[in-house]
Amino acid sequence: MSATAIRILGIDPGLRNMGWGIIEAAGTRLIYVASGSIHSQSTDDLGTRLRQLHQGLTRIIEAHAPHEAAVEETFVNRDPQSALKLGQARGIALVVPALAGLPVTEYAANLVKKTVTGSGHAEKAQIAIMVKVLLPKCASDLRALPTDAADALAIAITHAHHYKMTAVRRA
Amino acid sequence: MSATAIRILGIDPGLRNMGWGIIEAAGTRLIYVASGSIHSQSTDDLGTRLRQLHQGLTRIIEAHAPHEAAVEETFVNRDPQSALKLGQARGIALVVPALAGLPVTEYAANLVKKTVTGSGHAEKAQIAIMVKVLLPKCASDLRALPTDAADALAIAITHAHHYKMTAVRRA
Repeated sequence: MSATAIRILGIDPGLRNMGWGIIEAAGTRLIYVASGSIHSQSTDDLGTRLRQLHQGLTRIIEAHAPHEAAVEETFVNRDPQSALKLGQARGIALVVPALAGLPVTEYAANLVKKTVTGSGHAEKAQIAIMVKVLLPKCASDLRALPTDAADALAIAITHAHHYKMTAVRRA
Repeated sequence: MSATAIRILGIDPGLRNMGWGIIEAAGTRLIYVASGSIHSQSTDDLGTRLRQLHQGLTRIIEAHAPHEAAVEETFVNRDPQSALKLGQARGIALVVPALAGLPVTEYAANLVKKTVTGSGHAEKAQIAIMVKVLLPKCASDLRALPTDAADALAIAITHAHHYKMTAVRRA
């Protein structure tokens, strides 16, 4: 990793599947590091499920030592009970990087789509295709992975883009 | 604490104010231990706020070593965005005791009201009054405390009642 590279953890929050993806951004270059999905068992009680996600995410941060985290700012148009459920998983996605001392930035879902595909209304499949184009080294890895991992990498790419924009404005 | 006593942590989840209350249940006796409310600063970003709640709750568990935790099963009839926000705080309320190895039980809000006041539609003020009757030692302490702490104690009392019921059925 070069001295100016920044390692970013992107998280796509979900109770059943919590997608995660790590990239390195060095100038205009984006380098794939790792990605995956943390599962919780729907047969377990809610406390146990959230603990599984918490411990999984903690291990990923320990293993890959990212500098910053980015989480999708979920748009909820469903019933309040589903929003509450998703919120519980999202609380874990936000608190684990914060406990590790990482700055956590939130990005709206349509900004993530627009940054990666050029359209704020892109389909899940289009996001996965563009993630593979932008991060060629992940292509073989991603083939076997769920869309949560591709979404998490798209969030990390969005942060890399906006982080650089902010850095340029600061200079 | 007697050998058969069980120490219960009740939590009333909220992003701005997370109420907590600890009681000991020994047979039919309920003993007040401690209660309070953990605040997060609305001017901080969400990750930081959830970290404040996580760290506050972790310290309370370390200080008072409860055996079990009980969390209110929030009924959400508001807009999905509010439910998402509450869910994030609720995720912290559930995961911190689970990380400490405590069994976490959820109770519906109207069951908590019914257990403490006899009515599933009791007002907040009635709950606080009954908590003071059931836990006389907390009366002086509670006068200065927000209703979140009274609600958290009501949740702990509900767990004490239902835990005993289960124990009786098991015997």
